[in-house]
Amino acid sequence: MTATETPAPAQATLRPTSPGLEALLQQRFTILDHGFIRVIDYMGNDDAVVQAARVSYGRGTKSRSEDSGLIQFLMQHHHSTPFEMCVIKFHVKLPIFIARQWIRHRTASVNEVSARYSILAREFYLPAPEVIAAQSSSNRQGRGEALPPEEALEVLRILRDDATTNYDHYQWLLNDQNDGEVHDPSRHSLSRELARMNLTLNSYTEWYWSINLHNLFHFLRLRSDPHAQYEIRAYAEKMLEITAAWVPLSHQAFVEHRLESATLSKTMVELLRQQIKGQVVTFESSGLSRRQWDHYQSIIHTK
Amino acid sequence: MTATETPAPAQATLRPTSPGLEALLQQRFTILDHGFIRVIDYMGNDDAVVQAARVSYGRGTKSRSEDSGLIQFLMQHHHSTPFEMCVIKFHVKLPIFIARQWIRHRTASVNEVSARYSILAREFYLPAPEVIAAQSSSNRQGRGEALPPEEALEVLRILRDDATTNYDHYQWLLNDQNDGEVHDPSRHSLSRELARMNLTLNSYTEWYWSINLHNLFHFLRLRSDPHAQYEIRAYAEKMLEITAAWVPLSHQAFVEHRLESATLSKTMVELLRQQIKGQVVTFESSGLSRRQWDHYQSIIHTK
Amino acid sequence: MTATETPAPAQATLRPTSPGLEALLQQRFTILDHGFIRVIDYMGNDDAVVQAARVSYGRGTKSRSEDSGLIQFLMQHHHSTPFEMCVIKFHVKLPIFIARQWIRHRTASVNEVSARYSILAREFYLPAPEVIAAQSSSNRQGRGEALPPEEALEVLRILRDDATTNYDHYQWLLNDQNDGEVHDPSRHSLSRELARMNLTLNSYTEWYWSINLHNLFHFLRLRSDPHAQYEIRAYAEKMLEITAAWVPLSHQAFVEHRLESATLSKTMVELLRQQIKGQVVTFESSGLSRRQWDHYQSIIHTK
Amino acid sequence: MTATETPAPAQATLRPTSPGLEALLQQRFTILDHGFIRVIDYMGNDDAVVQAARVSYGRGTKSRSEDSGLIQFLMQHHHSTPFEMCVIKFHVKLPIFIARQWIRHRTASVNEVSARYSILAREFYLPAPEVIAAQSSSNRQGRGEALPPEEALEVLRILRDDATTNYDHYQWLLNDQNDGEVHDPSRHSLSRELARMNLTLNSYTEWYWSINLHNLFHFLRLRSDPHAQYEIRAYAEKMLEITAAWVPLSHQAFVEHRLESATLSKTMVELLRQQIKGQVVTFESSGLSRRQWDHYQSIIHTK
Repeated sequence: MTATETPAPAQATLRPTSPGLEALLQQRFTILDHGFIRVIDYMGNDDAVVQAARVSYGRGTKSRSEDSGLIQFLMQHHHSTPFEMCVIKFHVKLPIFIARQWIRHRTASVNEVSARYSILAREFYLPAPEVIAAQSSSNRQGRGEALPPEEALEVLRILRDDATTNYDHYQWLLNDQNDGEVHDPSRHSLSRELARMNLTLNSYTEWYWSINLHNLFHFLRLRSDPHAQYEIRAYAEKMLEITAAWVPLSHQAFVEHRLESATLSKTMVELLRQQIKGQVVTFESSGLSRRQWDHYQSIIHTK
Repeated sequence: MTATETPAPAQATLRPTSPGLEALLQQRFTILDHGFIRVIDYMGNDDAVVQAARVSYGRGTKSRSEDSGLIQFLMQHHHSTPFEMCVIKFHVKLPIFIARQWIRHRTASVNEVSARYSILAREFYLPAPEVIAAQSSSNRQGRGEALPPEEALEVLRILRDDATTNYDHYQWLLNDQNDGEVHDPSRHSLSRELARMNLTLNSYTEWYWSINLHNLFHFLRLRSDPHAQYEIRAYAEKMLEITAAWVPLSHQAFVEHRLESATLSKTMVELLRQQIKGQVVTFESSGLSRRQWDHYQSIIHTK
Repeated sequence: MTATETPAPAQATLRPTSPGLEALLQQRFTILDHGFIRVIDYMGNDDAVVQAARVSYGRGTKSRSEDSGLIQFLMQHHHSTPFEMCVIKFHVKLPIFIARQWIRHRTASVNEVSARYSILAREFYLPAPEVIAAQSSSNRQGRGEALPPEEALEVLRILRDDATTNYDHYQWLLNDQNDGEVHDPSRHSLSRELARMNLTLNSYTEWYWSINLHNLFHFLRLRSDPHAQYEIRAYAEKMLEITAAWVPLSHQAFVEHRLESATLSKTMVELLRQQIKGQVVTFESSGLSRRQWDHYQSIIHTK
Repeated sequence: MTATETPAPAQATLRPTSPGLEALLQQRFTILDHGFIRVIDYMGNDDAVVQAARVSYGRGTKSRSEDSGLIQFLMQHHHSTPFEMCVIKFHVKLPIFIARQWIRHRTASVNEVSARYSILAREFYLPAPEVIAAQSSSNRQGRGEALPPEEALEVLRILRDDATTNYDHYQWLLNDQNDGEVHDPSRHSLSRELARMNLTLNSYTEWYWSINLHNLFHFLRLRSDPHAQYEIRAYAEKMLEITAAWVPLSHQAFVEHRLESATLSKTMVELLRQQIKGQVVTFESSGLSRRQWDHYQSIIHTK
């Protein structure tokens, strides 16, 4: 299922390049147990953002610090179109249940391995025991406590056994004539498009995924959030690193104005102004729900 | 998982209505074994298409036959924006492996049941035996011959057993305290977002799916095609019927100019013109590949 | 150019309705001197947002206050898809230079009067004298001071004279045979698609514009901002009122979490936490640019 | 208004390149009287299309002829996502009334010079006399006959005079302090965002325009059509040449299966099958409108 990975030799181009990203191109970064991310191609760099902004908003001088200030300004004020001038294409291998979350971001181009046409490999995601335990306890969606080690191992055993059995049966149903170990010429083959329904949701799939920088930032903001599922966060965090290498000024502005920014609701702004004036503000008088109050406190107080 | 379905009482509105679609609203049409389609809401009708076109392209008289001619003209000449003025919202229940095909159409709005937050029901798709046999023989993706009945039953047994076992284990992993038959207080619970990975791809999911008429036609053209997988075609065909009730003139134009139209490539046009002039045209001299030649023949000859 | 406006009689529908918006349907709200906004059609209401969210995120009880809390939660956490389940269609008349700003929002469906096919009316936007003066002084883009009344009148005279002359010549070039006062059968006519290039950018155009609630909120946030141009703000503010009538709970959440919220950058959050701890924070030590410092001060201090 | 055009020196890259397009990068191709197209950047080539298709639809061997056949197959069967893996960025200068047609294609990224922030140059489109004559006679939108030379010159005189006068007044309204020839310190300045409304629709604007190959083909199909306005066709035709240099196999497939293909409606297919069987088919018995009949005849007969 894996596309050809012979590293291409360097070629000359008149296009803008990003030295930081060139150094990472084609490299395979392992994510989870069998997944990976590779950057296949890209277009543009920080200069492309600046160039587009200067056409739209007029031009000034062009020192590096002014470029940085301009990019900060664009990010802060939601002037998103200059960031659309940069595009990146990833090759990603990921479990199907994560692919289903990921694909909800519609503003990207995708070519995924199709199990109508190809036979999927015997690969499925099995979380590390400590991941099982941690997710169960900390995650709001889990609502449970940490699983003790022996229970985590039992979970893993079930996941592995079921995925294995289901894959064995998938192979049996396919009865593929090119699969020497399995093929039984006395039986018929089930079509691939039907056989695949027996696979489990932790089976791995692959795709090429192309997205512009503006939409990538939106994806990364949502998917690197502590509330995002651990498995998709693992991909998002590696992509954040890649983005920092590709467009360092834009990445820095993204961290400053999105990723580590905090938004105060209208009511919170009013509370804050009272506090700054020296008035005492309490939950009871705040008009906030308990959850909003806690959120407000987490913004204004050092953790 | 099913949303409330108490039929709402009729209310007065100043909006345009579609009598044909009002008669179908909220009805649950069963698809496959456990799936369904329901129309929840809509905006616009054939008149909305005409109104938008007349603003763009100028206005003439307004008889019903002229409306029909105008809609035919729009469809033929790919003037797509007037069709975007109509929107429909479906509630759909469908197997996950079909949901994965469906979601590739990015120009729609989707709210899907999330197994991070909700526990999926014990429902999975099992194809009818004759579907298994037929798909295996006719489908290019299948590459096989028809399965004899006893083999089809064996396939079904495997699919049912695996889905059942995996669902049993899913329930065991969840160990949900509200599930009296299953809950074991001496064990911990695995988070929902992890437990779901043990489910098979024929498990059912549900979503609300809102799309404008232009994009719906594009979806229906691709998914009602004989090359589309049987299971998604079953949904597309019902949606075609619903569309005929909703916007009869637009539907008719869609059938005439898209669904049952035929496109001749540049080379085919040249061949056809030779034939019309009385020249003899053969595969060997045609410049077409075998597959293209067969396609050309299928267009010009009555089946 | 104006579409038929005979108020349709009320009809029965099984669709969800919005009483607040029904009361405004088809009404023509004048904007600027010759512009207007009319709501033609819509789909969905606050309940549709709640219904979509409950399918995605699981369900609780259903009191009105819980609906409101859920919608607030969705808005705060950027769960945007439920808001896509509501759609509204406007009929808008607006000056071309404003239409060019507006159309930059790509996530809507548009059918605009085409001057390739239709002859535009003799209507152009002339700002009120006080608007000319105010915009010139307050607007960062203006960089000037307030125009004294006699200069404003001179500006107006030029704008009116040029638009009138250019329209006269447009008519002369068209030499339209249906235009009895103008038609000269001894001359030829210039094609409409060419003649239009002589019109000024304050000529009025019209369109149907259909957009879902999520994208409408994004548009309104940017275009009702004090930094937006006065002329487009005039439209945005009326649309905000319409939205409040249509989906009051969603509108309220939008005001609370977007329109009147404030975002602190990473650096501002750190400064705020120091201030809350009682430390003194100054511009010099803040690490902020002057413009960012001023912005920070405007957030934390009552105006 | 023109972005910096110092040709960048060639740099090394590990990305795929397109030798045909590298040879054209940064070159300025004049369109109309003052317009131009330049390619600034791109991502991908024919190999990227093939690579994406092979991941989706399975893989075969990899000769050049098989690549070409695969791309033809994708184009014919509307498998559009592999073409989305290629992206191109243009710098375009064009008259505003053409920019308004162009921007209707929403699936691109745009950064346009803003006359809120920048002062537009004294440049406006004046059609060549023979263009005025030809468009008036041949174009359905024109409905007229050819303008005799002396009338065409009179048209030109009006267009030039009005554009010049309006620009003079624009400058007067701006009263820009950096414009030594015009600046009058005794008068105030009108804001740029208001002054621009006095410009005519043939004033030139500029933008960066980034689009993927699938959407570019859609744009080129509509805008290089003989029914498209001459002025936008001039841009589309140059972009077709550029595309042929960039992705020769994809361009060839586009010409074969889209640009010079012909679509027969359902009724036309039935008529054709009768003709091929030797039956006589007439307009009267065809069931087609006159316009459709003429279209059918134009497909099946050599011109």
